[in-house]
Amino acid sequence: MILEVAILNVKHNEEIKFEMAFLKAQQIIMNINGYISHQLQRCIERPNRYILLVNWNTLESHTIDFRLSDEYDEWRKLLHHFYEPFPEVEHYKSIFSNV
Amino acid sequence: MILEVAILNVKHNEEIKFEMAFLKAQQIIMNINGYISHQLQRCIERPNRYILLVNWNTLESHTIDFRLSDEYDEWRKLLHHFYEPFPEVEHYKSIFSNV
Repeated sequence: MILEVAILNVKHNEEIKFEMAFLKAQQIIMNINGYISHQLQRCIERPNRYILLVNWNTLESHTIDFRLSDEYDEWRKLLHHFYEPFPEVEHYKSIFSNV
Repeated sequence: MILEVAILNVKHNEEIKFEMAFLKAQQIIMNINGYISHQLQRCIERPNRYILLVNWNTLESHTIDFRLSDEYDEWRKLLHHFYEPFPEVEHYKSIFSNV
C-alpha cells in the first residue's frame, strides 16, 4: 500500500468553493481501480491549506490507473484552478504504524 | 480529533539510525494522554524524507500534554538531531474522510 500526500494551498476566500468541489471530485477517485481510502483535512495554523491523503494499492494505481484516465481530466477541471502554488505530490511507504 | 503532520527531512545516510531511534521514540508518544494513533512513512521520491502523522484527541494533547512534558525532552534527544532543516509541524482537522 502506498500513501499519496498532497499539501494543497487554496486561493484565499475560495476555501468553501474548494470544499464543495472536492465533495464532488472525491467520488471520482473512489471509483478508480486500486483506490483504498482517502481523507481531506484542513490546517489549523493556515486555514487556506489542506492535506490530501490517499491510500492506493500500488504507486501505479495513482500514477497510471488514475492520472492517465479520462476521470483525471474531470478531477483536474474540478480542482486544479483552486491551487496556488500548484502542489507537489509525493508518495510514501509505511515504516511504522499504530492505527 | 486533530492530525499532527510533520514532514521530516533526515540527514543523508542517517536514515537507518533515524528509523531505529524512532522505533524507541514512538513508545514515548504512545503513552501520552490524548494520543490516539500514529504512522511514520518514508517518501519514495526522496528517500531521506519521512512523514509523521499523529492523531491526538485535541490540539492541546500535542502542544501542551506532550510538548510541555518531561517525556518530550527524551523524544527531542532521540530524534531532533537527525533533522535538516528542522521541521515545521502543522495540525489539521478532518473535512472529509473515507477510511
